[in-house]
Amino acid sequence: MKKQIVLKSRPVGKPTADNFETRLIEIPTVAEGEVRLVAHTFSVDPYLRGRMSDAKSYIAPFQVGEAIVSGLVAKVVESKAANLKVGDFVMERLPWQEEMVVPAKGLQVVDEKIAPLSYYLGILGMPGLTAYFGLLDIGKPQKGETVVVSGAAGAVGMVVGQIAKIQGCRVVGIAGDDAKNEYLMKELHFDAVINYKTVKNLDKALDTACPSGVDVYFDNVGGEISDAVIAQINKGARIIICGQISLYNATSMPVGPRIQPSLLKRSAMMQGFIVSNYVHRFPEGFKVLAGWVSGGLLKYTNTAYKGFDQLPEAFIALFEGKNLGKLIVEVS
Amino acid sequence: MKKQIVLKSRPVGKPTADNFETRLIEIPTVAEGEVRLVAHTFSVDPYLRGRMSDAKSYIAPFQVGEAIVSGLVAKVVESKAANLKVGDFVMERLPWQEEMVVPAKGLQVVDEKIAPLSYYLGILGMPGLTAYFGLLDIGKPQKGETVVVSGAAGAVGMVVGQIAKIQGCRVVGIAGDDAKNEYLMKELHFDAVINYKTVKNLDKALDTACPSGVDVYFDNVGGEISDAVIAQINKGARIIICGQISLYNATSMPVGPRIQPSLLKRSAMMQGFIVSNYVHRFPEGFKVLAGWVSGGLLKYTNTAYKGFDQLPEAFIALFEGKNLGKLIVEVS
Repeated sequence: MKKQIVLKSRPVGKPTADNFETRLIEIPTVAEGEVRLVAHTFSVDPYLRGRMSDAKSYIAPFQVGEAIVSGLVAKVVESKAANLKVGDFVMERLPWQEEMVVPAKGLQVVDEKIAPLSYYLGILGMPGLTAYFGLLDIGKPQKGETVVVSGAAGAVGMVVGQIAKIQGCRVVGIAGDDAKNEYLMKELHFDAVINYKTVKNLDKALDTACPSGVDVYFDNVGGEISDAVIAQINKGARIIICGQISLYNATSMPVGPRIQPSLLKRSAMMQGFIVSNYVHRFPEGFKVLAGWVSGGLLKYTNTAYKGFDQLPEAFIALFEGKNLGKLIVEVS
Repeated sequence: MKKQIVLKSRPVGKPTADNFETRLIEIPTVAEGEVRLVAHTFSVDPYLRGRMSDAKSYIAPFQVGEAIVSGLVAKVVESKAANLKVGDFVMERLPWQEEMVVPAKGLQVVDEKIAPLSYYLGILGMPGLTAYFGLLDIGKPQKGETVVVSGAAGAVGMVVGQIAKIQGCRVVGIAGDDAKNEYLMKELHFDAVINYKTVKNLDKALDTACPSGVDVYFDNVGGEISDAVIAQINKGARIIICGQISLYNATSMPVGPRIQPSLLKRSAMMQGFIVSNYVHRFPEGFKVLAGWVSGGLLKYTNTAYKGFDQLPEAFIALFEGKNLGKLIVEVS
């Protein structure tokens, strides 16, 4: 019997441990074309919160009583598939289980010799690709422009800031912790950082950090932080809506200043997106990101919880802003 | 002495007659390179409201005590410029005056033989070009898609709807008057119309009018009408912010539901613009619009006030939704 974590109830507001339940399940035998996997490292992501609600979104909701599914790097321990052998590592969206039997088809093989396994969930995985396509394809930052990123110390945000630096932009990060901001300044060479939790006047801080205004805003957070940034956009600004983590736990329709007049006055553009829109270009993104990583232009860090049982706690911690970089749970 | 209308005070909320003052001015003599013009037809536009406030926008505010400036077709009655002769008609942004002496340089000659003079302020002028570039360049409507336009019976909106029909789209117009909506259906062949003032349930009416959802929303109005439309956008929708007339008279920051989550869930795009962004492509737009007009594909109508003194009243009427098509004031 192996452990599985299911959605016990849909969260109302901030998720709690009570929304999850651990069960023991039988792992079936391996049929032709299938493999048995042992979980190695789980990805824990803000977008999972959306799937825990039953509102219409870009991805179907989780069902109560069924396993949570997220990105997982797993080890093949038994194989009846020609293309996978015991000892291979694979990555896919897979259930929160210690072990599982799945079809081999569609599993992406990942290679520890090219990059540490956790990278395939982070800088070379979904968050890295999200930063790459969102910033470059939608934001189109030009040399000398000012790029502001919210959730700057998160898995996506810290890649966005570094790619913007590679493009020759002034990069301003917004995060909620001094230690995170120090990392962004000292290790990732952001030009300015703002701690939105301790700053006295966010408008003034943004004005100081962005003396030439804001040309590109990569938004992971939404809410009042975004109101303040949007108030300082330049003509022709591009706003990339990647996440709205400040609103994911809202229990009523969030309201705020209407932004259409600002977009109108500045001929500005705002675009929502999800990385899967770019699935046909993933190989390109992976190649460029891997090149930047191996060339030392992109640094990467993560926050790791240890042990399968930590999955719910790690997920809840996302909404407390505890993670620096990608949040992962290492199982084995 | 000739009449001039100046901004007497900045409107707070809806403009009133008290915000304007008529003065008598001396018309100077004509110097080399100048012409004397007699006003023929003024254009009265919602965007002028923005210039009456002193908030930062895409165009400098009017100064209190100075003449209002708007689009004008005027007749040359005296010329000391080689390129203009007495009897020519010209168009330019010019002051609200019965007569004026201005440099000939920069005045666009308009030809009554090609189209009625009022067309150069409407379908072949700024509103027509606004509809053309906003819908086609930003909205990129595809055959079979559903295009919703607010302010559908206004100068821009009725051109947007007709161009969308030319593109093979389903066109849904929102306006606040049954007579206007009848015109849109019978004369301009819109597929559906909604009277937002009398409809009992706007959400339900939109749902009925847009059985396949909303792919393109051309927004002239903003506010609660837009909230309802944005709630029904499809994946990959494009929202063009052309005007926000429902908010122009707001005396405090308008608030409403935050729209970023909707844009995120639908990978949708919203873009503000002003027609002058496309000044380098005006000849293209004019040529295409003129072709459609002469080919009978684009119909046009306007609401005309008669007499110079009617300018303030005509402008105020814009915010009461009284105009069908372009609102103009015929002086002579």
